[in-house]
Amino acid sequence: MRRIGVIGAGLCDDRIYELAYTVGQMVAERGAILYCGGLGGVMEASAKGACSKGGLTVGIIPGVKASEANDYIKIPIVTGMGHARNVILVRSCEALIAISGSHGTLSEIALALKMWKPVIGLHTWKDIPEVHYVETAKDAVEKAFSLLP
Amino acid sequence: MRRIGVIGAGLCDDRIYELAYTVGQMVAERGAILYCGGLGGVMEASAKGACSKGGLTVGIIPGVKASEANDYIKIPIVTGMGHARNVILVRSCEALIAISGSHGTLSEIALALKMWKPVIGLHTWKDIPEVHYVETAKDAVEKAFSLLP
Amino acid sequence: MRRIGVIGAGLCDDRIYELAYTVGQMVAERGAILYCGGLGGVMEASAKGACSKGGLTVGIIPGVKASEANDYIKIPIVTGMGHARNVILVRSCEALIAISGSHGTLSEIALALKMWKPVIGLHTWKDIPEVHYVETAKDAVEKAFSLLP
Amino acid sequence: MRRIGVIGAGLCDDRIYELAYTVGQMVAERGAILYCGGLGGVMEASAKGACSKGGLTVGIIPGVKASEANDYIKIPIVTGMGHARNVILVRSCEALIAISGSHGTLSEIALALKMWKPVIGLHTWKDIPEVHYVETAKDAVEKAFSLLP
Repeated sequence: MRRIGVIGAGLCDDRIYELAYTVGQMVAERGAILYCGGLGGVMEASAKGACSKGGLTVGIIPGVKASEANDYIKIPIVTGMGHARNVILVRSCEALIAISGSHGTLSEIALALKMWKPVIGLHTWKDIPEVHYVETAKDAVEKAFSLLP
Repeated sequence: MRRIGVIGAGLCDDRIYELAYTVGQMVAERGAILYCGGLGGVMEASAKGACSKGGLTVGIIPGVKASEANDYIKIPIVTGMGHARNVILVRSCEALIAISGSHGTLSEIALALKMWKPVIGLHTWKDIPEVHYVETAKDAVEKAFSLLP
Repeated sequence: MRRIGVIGAGLCDDRIYELAYTVGQMVAERGAILYCGGLGGVMEASAKGACSKGGLTVGIIPGVKASEANDYIKIPIVTGMGHARNVILVRSCEALIAISGSHGTLSEIALALKMWKPVIGLHTWKDIPEVHYVETAKDAVEKAFSLLP
Repeated sequence: MRRIGVIGAGLCDDRIYELAYTVGQMVAERGAILYCGGLGGVMEASAKGACSKGGLTVGIIPGVKASEANDYIKIPIVTGMGHARNVILVRSCEALIAISGSHGTLSEIALALKMWKPVIGLHTWKDIPEVHYVETAKDAVEKAFSLLP
């Protein structure tokens, strides 16, 4: 199965939550596994969307307890490694969709580009060369799948 | 879903392979997710057994490519962290079954005990206090589930 | 002793090499330990500069062999964790000076900001809020020390 | 400079503390850098011993704050990776001396053997094949240096 990562802020407003939820739904509808950081905000929304379509969700969490994962994570990976889990998340995916987000997300975008993974940007850090910027959830998911290796 | 880890040698003889395969089957039959290190030997056998019963299998691999995972890993986690992936594997599970194995397995047993996780020993490193030693695949899986938190 | 990180490209032109060398010298002259990623380019130049002034140099390297470190690393830390070493480097420092650099450096800048560490930017990724941009090696080092916790 | 690791319990009695202190002194007298896990007990004692002879001490700590390191660590490496720091410690050294210790130490012994590093055992886990058991601090340090690559 294909592996799509969704990265973004752990706290977000309703509009971004909705966007991430829709991305999660579409990733699951296309039969891919959704990987994320397992916490709240964009991570929770995308996992919730994927679950609503019966998809598999993997949450690679920074802390030491599986219970830290949000309620929509079917497969928790408990790293106990803090931000170093970002590296594992990025490495495990074939393409990543960045939605909103702050410095943690920027680190994931940079790591993904460093590893030559396709990165789709949706209302996130601007003007990073090599990021594929789109405006809608649908375009993000289509672009991600079109760029799979 | 419950999370059971199987740890053991990357190379093993037919008897150990069969044992690990049976353990994997029984873990899946009881509805738990099987976590392992994703490579060959005991890791492959247990994942193959779990797949034969329709179970979910997670492989937390040391290298940088998902293709390093054996053919029975449904969810690859690509750490790129070498032996440090042992820590993530142990931390992600609720109980671990050690089958045969050498120094890598010993490190996982020790890490699991350090983290207060139940460890079941099946033809593996002997005489480690706190390891629950058993003789059969069936006893290993029953013991593991009986010790879940 | 104070701990200053220098982050930047593993390959660089002579002008950037010179800049990083001077930064390394000034860090050592002020009595701080220089931390870097231990490889070539900006990492080598800054370590070489620090050594020229009798400073201590720590190289937190991504690979599995200490011999991967450049010739000016007195204390090699061999992580075997690939890009996850960026997280360790950033976490170990009290302030970071980013010189030139590509995606790896961007990930380190982002991680440093995520961890609330001061970041000084010298001919590196532009327009990142919270980075303190300067134009000379001298200004970079002075700014870094002025922002130490 | 040579890199010798000392591994052992974070809590220990006076006899073990004294033993680790003496090992640290002898490592420094021979001009090697002492690497340890940076916390209390055997880690603190060996670092204190090394400092008493003017040696360099590296503490690779599990937590997220440099202040977690004991008072005798000159070079803190702040991993934020919990037990995964054991892997980095082992990988960074050319030989390791295990003194007393519990499950964490056992994991380090196992990881060291997995990576083909010489391990000297001093009042620690017994009967592990390939560990070089000795009875005194002096023998431990001499054996460690005799086995350097």
